[in-house]
Amino acid sequence: MPEQGYIILGLDPGFGRMGFGVVFTDGKSVELLDYGVAVTVSGDTFENRLLSLASDLHDLCTRHRPHLVAVEKLYFGKMTTNAMKVAEARGVALLMAAQSGAPVLEFTPAQVKLALTGDGKAGKAGVQRMVKELLGLPQPPKPDDAADALAVAITAANKKW
Amino acid sequence: MPEQGYIILGLDPGFGRMGFGVVFTDGKSVELLDYGVAVTVSGDTFENRLLSLASDLHDLCTRHRPHLVAVEKLYFGKMTTNAMKVAEARGVALLMAAQSGAPVLEFTPAQVKLALTGDGKAGKAGVQRMVKELLGLPQPPKPDDAADALAVAITAANKKW
Repeated sequence: MPEQGYIILGLDPGFGRMGFGVVFTDGKSVELLDYGVAVTVSGDTFENRLLSLASDLHDLCTRHRPHLVAVEKLYFGKMTTNAMKVAEARGVALLMAAQSGAPVLEFTPAQVKLALTGDGKAGKAGVQRMVKELLGLPQPPKPDDAADALAVAITAANKKW
Repeated sequence: MPEQGYIILGLDPGFGRMGFGVVFTDGKSVELLDYGVAVTVSGDTFENRLLSLASDLHDLCTRHRPHLVAVEKLYFGKMTTNAMKVAEARGVALLMAAQSGAPVLEFTPAQVKLALTGDGKAGKAGVQRMVKELLGLPQPPKPDDAADALAVAITAANKKW
């Protein structure tokens, strides 16, 4: 860890909406720096939507210069057209993370739930409540994709180094 | 179509090996320009393998300046870890194609088989024989990933515009 702490970018992959959350940790507490959603145009070609995501992720990495990028792993039982597209968008997220030069960590949804609530099967509301509490926010951050991305960033922040 | 014809880059997505094939068509015949495989290091982190693929694809697009990029669609019944990684690598291929500025076409394996042999259920050997004949080669190109990528490029070349 750098002397003052770590900037961590968390990503919740998707091709229509990719949630992002940026936190700072000094190894004890976690502080909110930024969060939001990279949105792509639904009528655009799929490759242009990937291009738009790549551009937004590049801007995020340039703006925040994360020491670490944490990306949620996907869980899909079936390989549907939608699942395939989410995986393709996730490939773009991993590529942009690698291009930023920051190490990349990947966490399963169960690891994120466990890290935030102590229960690997916790519901979405429980995770979002912990995001709110750990970051000292008056309300859980919205939209859900951004809250999920912050949960991934906090999971990375809480990992023992 | 530009006056003299089209340069088409065909891609057969994979994360360990990504086949590529470059052809030129004047709208009647198809001519081989280049083919091969972008190989990544199996012991490397997955994000670095994506970075390596992106770099190779960028070089290919810079070298050949394709008017069109044709990418094979994936078919997987189950979402296995391997299928997920192939889809992630395919996302990187689509992104690099989009970054080159060339339009992107996608073809299913059945469309490629049908275009080359007239039979959407043709076997691999039958497709490779047609790649050899259509490009006037003494032998089917090797390795298979490169031959598959050439088949995708030829499919795009034979499409009626």
